[in-house]
Amino acid sequence: MGRNGNIVSMAVVRRLPRYQRYLSELLKNDIRRISSRELSERMGVTASQIRQDLNCFGGFGQQGYGYNVEDLYNAITAILGLDKSYNTIIVGAGNLGQAIAGYTNFEKSGFTLRALFDVNPKLIGLSIRDIEILDVDSLPDFLHENKVDIGIMCIPRRTAQQVADILTDNGVRAIWNFSMTDLNVPDNIIVESVHLSDSLYTISYRLNEDELFKKIEKERHRN
Amino acid sequence: MGRNGNIVSMAVVRRLPRYQRYLSELLKNDIRRISSRELSERMGVTASQIRQDLNCFGGFGQQGYGYNVEDLYNAITAILGLDKSYNTIIVGAGNLGQAIAGYTNFEKSGFTLRALFDVNPKLIGLSIRDIEILDVDSLPDFLHENKVDIGIMCIPRRTAQQVADILTDNGVRAIWNFSMTDLNVPDNIIVESVHLSDSLYTISYRLNEDELFKKIEKERHRN
Repeated sequence: MGRNGNIVSMAVVRRLPRYQRYLSELLKNDIRRISSRELSERMGVTASQIRQDLNCFGGFGQQGYGYNVEDLYNAITAILGLDKSYNTIIVGAGNLGQAIAGYTNFEKSGFTLRALFDVNPKLIGLSIRDIEILDVDSLPDFLHENKVDIGIMCIPRRTAQQVADILTDNGVRAIWNFSMTDLNVPDNIIVESVHLSDSLYTISYRLNEDELFKKIEKERHRN
Repeated sequence: MGRNGNIVSMAVVRRLPRYQRYLSELLKNDIRRISSRELSERMGVTASQIRQDLNCFGGFGQQGYGYNVEDLYNAITAILGLDKSYNTIIVGAGNLGQAIAGYTNFEKSGFTLRALFDVNPKLIGLSIRDIEILDVDSLPDFLHENKVDIGIMCIPRRTAQQVADILTDNGVRAIWNFSMTDLNVPDNIIVESVHLSDSLYTISYRLNEDELFKKIEKERHRN
């Protein structure tokens, strides 16, 4: 099975980081046990959804009065592969690339940024958090000399496929794609594309939902 | 019902922008009709899922051999409220704020950026695409004088709640929150928080999935 076909459905996988975030908040607030009902209310999913999701990974016993927060947090952290470390690079050191380079939380979770790359001579040679911005021409050589797991692409659409080819031809296993375009990559390469507009459009939807359903109701009555 | 309780579940709403993106690609490639099977294969969801999702909004007839791409695109665009226009501001004109200000695609979809705000005197007075960066102290006055629908928060965690209060006290109806923290807002305010780590962690998950399931299988055999 190619990497594009997951064992567990992506709908489930996409809920796991949220579970992990909520559990980490609970731990910070020194909450050690939580009932499945309370957990589900906080996360906005049903208790049975949480149970089903966890069952995909063998399940986690609710001992009588709920979940042990720390155990569940540790289990989900391991499921997400966050007990391991990853080397990353950022291609495109513009505003977005620099913003992502600045997120020290990613480092804390095991994602170590090794270098940034850009075409802009004004950026090449500068550093973000002591990590140098290199000439993108040196990208293939860099990838030969350094094991890089994840390439973070913060470049415009028109050069995206070319950079993706360089990354995947030189041992990068996954691409975090902010280039707002789809990429053609071999089956064994993981691509996670971020479309910020998807998130923005849920806002315009919600700003209009009441009005939308008034209109739908009206048309229903007319027919 | 408060704004936090949607009429249609957010799981459905979150699929709509993706449908709209794919349909817009089809239109660009001059594809006028598509069978529900082909549409579902391209989008990676089942045909019945698409049908169910559309049924939440009254449904869209598949006339014999599938969907009319343009009609469906226009319908989903309207459902997402993208046939209307919105005034936005960005609070926090650092790298991320500037990156978002630079996305002209949001403008094309009806989201007009009116101003950016920052505390940094080096940024105040500069412009991005002719849109000025103003002193954050002038934010309440600006909101009294200008109708702003959506506040985009690109500021650190520690000032996030304070800024959210200013926005919601002064007529802003929705917050697009990049501050990596949860916000307390009145029930009628829409908050869409972007947690980029959620997306990154699906990559580390997928990099480890095969190994994870080998381990789960082994433990199953042991028990």
